[in-house]
Amino acid sequence: MIKSSESKSASLKHKIVVCRDLGKEAMSLLYSSDHEIVAWEKDSPPPRKWVLENVQGASGICVMMVDKVDESLLDAAGPSLKVVSTFSVGYDHFDMAAVRARNIRVGYTPNVLNDAVADIAVLLVLMTMRRIGEAIQIVQEGRWPETPWSPFLLTGPALTKPSLTIGFLGFGRISHCTLERLLAFTQPRKSAHAPRCIYTSSRVRSNQQEIDNEYTEQFGIATRRVEVDVLARESDILIILCSLNKDTKGMVNEAFLEKMKSDAVLINVARGPIVDSTALATALENGHLCGAGLDVIDGEPNIPRDHPLVLNPRCVVLPHVGSASDMSRTGMAKLCKQQVYA
Amino acid sequence: MIKSSESKSASLKHKIVVCRDLGKEAMSLLYSSDHEIVAWEKDSPPPRKWVLENVQGASGICVMMVDKVDESLLDAAGPSLKVVSTFSVGYDHFDMAAVRARNIRVGYTPNVLNDAVADIAVLLVLMTMRRIGEAIQIVQEGRWPETPWSPFLLTGPALTKPSLTIGFLGFGRISHCTLERLLAFTQPRKSAHAPRCIYTSSRVRSNQQEIDNEYTEQFGIATRRVEVDVLARESDILIILCSLNKDTKGMVNEAFLEKMKSDAVLINVARGPIVDSTALATALENGHLCGAGLDVIDGEPNIPRDHPLVLNPRCVVLPHVGSASDMSRTGMAKLCKQQVYA
Repeated sequence: MIKSSESKSASLKHKIVVCRDLGKEAMSLLYSSDHEIVAWEKDSPPPRKWVLENVQGASGICVMMVDKVDESLLDAAGPSLKVVSTFSVGYDHFDMAAVRARNIRVGYTPNVLNDAVADIAVLLVLMTMRRIGEAIQIVQEGRWPETPWSPFLLTGPALTKPSLTIGFLGFGRISHCTLERLLAFTQPRKSAHAPRCIYTSSRVRSNQQEIDNEYTEQFGIATRRVEVDVLARESDILIILCSLNKDTKGMVNEAFLEKMKSDAVLINVARGPIVDSTALATALENGHLCGAGLDVIDGEPNIPRDHPLVLNPRCVVLPHVGSASDMSRTGMAKLCKQQVYA
Repeated sequence: MIKSSESKSASLKHKIVVCRDLGKEAMSLLYSSDHEIVAWEKDSPPPRKWVLENVQGASGICVMMVDKVDESLLDAAGPSLKVVSTFSVGYDHFDMAAVRARNIRVGYTPNVLNDAVADIAVLLVLMTMRRIGEAIQIVQEGRWPETPWSPFLLTGPALTKPSLTIGFLGFGRISHCTLERLLAFTQPRKSAHAPRCIYTSSRVRSNQQEIDNEYTEQFGIATRRVEVDVLARESDILIILCSLNKDTKGMVNEAFLEKMKSDAVLINVARGPIVDSTALATALENGHLCGAGLDVIDGEPNIPRDHPLVLNPRCVVLPHVGSASDMSRTGMAKLCKQQVYA
């Protein structure tokens, strides 16, 4: 499981530590290089002990979202370390103060997985609006024979609802890709009942009106920045796509959820701790919203089968598969490799 | 459960029999009319005995997909019967020879549910390509803690695959709506790696080339009619959206499935008997295709939990919810009502 590429030119050789199997394509690119590659070629994380031992004298380290990049790791690597590349869009697993103090560069994989994550966001919108979690349960529990087709069985809100409001908590590239996809399902952009888009961002820009006019032009529907409670109150579809930080942690709490429309759906494809799971479970039970679709959840992957959100038929929980398409994963792996080399 | 609207003008009054609860909005429209309404206001089908007794002397009958319209029903209604309206796109539950012989008009609800069914078609494409059935099982069976995130966990084929081929068995209005949605997920229409569309139709038209040029113009990607075995061989995504008749029954059989690409997905949102379930289960096990998404299945709703396709992790089975959005169901109900009145 641990391989080293052969030494070609000892003087130029840099040591690169790779903390996971990055797939055939990216791994063969790594081994064909002039560098010394030390790789934990498994699908599961390496033991911390293995990491701390092997990073000694490394120039580059390639980590995953679950591998913490902290003082102890940086100390173990020593002054040779120049770059740490992570196979993720976010870098909340980095102690950024420690990284910056040592002048180490951070690589991450922002754009290669836009499409894959946007696909999952739309999938979760469709699943929650059309009550697919409940539908699958009927079939899998053998209840279909006693649940004959009837006109209003499992009906849910429709994306063709006139003047649908699509809301984004965070409005970066993945949100834009998600919005473009959703507009293929809604009333036409130029029609009287066209949807509109509202979003939040961490701060108001001085030229906010101009930015919103540009977005309105770009997407072909009215698009504007709003305050968080307007987003909660007015969204029919509310998609979380912001980064996790001290301001966004727990932002979607009881007070936020109580403001939501009773036929709205909430989608989280960003990071679990942005949503208070207990508050969401209560809100779903109390009908403060119609359904929730989560690709991420606070405390993952330690989510038992009797977690209140896993048990709730109005909630779809996926095991963080947002970026899991063949193309995006290989793209991420190649990008990680390039960043370490650059 | 059985109500009759009061008589206003006996001479003009027609008897209308409604075999199911059509929802508050449509039902109140019915009762506010001048006609005599006899309705089975439940979510489940009326007993055949109730139907045969109540249709006597009716001018119009409103049925659902599971209510057979045959000689015995038409005989029971008698010569007063002018129209039978069905709450569905298909009318394979009608004995059309018997209906035509009596010069009775048939109403059905073709366009109101295009959007709702197209949404489910896209949902099933995303679910099968991204292996969401398996993903949900990991969470619901409590296996997430032992299935930590890894680079290639549950990766599947991507809609952004260059030169993706989207195939349709049957190319009517719902197929067009589905294609429009899918094109929001693929490579851009005008790019070098744009997707293409192939489809089958029951017969070649004399101006086939012209028709295909019009489609190519309409959708912005190369679109052309092909023979069935080309469709099976070349589609990356194969969506069944044809009507059920003697030619299409069992069309997707062992021979068809063997021709499919090993990374292709098959979606059925039309009628169950078009696909041979046993052949599909075998094909999925043998890797003749990557996954299947079924909103309909032969023998529904009598599908036990141990049905081989329900048990197969690469197959998503939904309990025929294709048209189950609030808007389409109410639209269908209103249309049924209008047809009976017209």
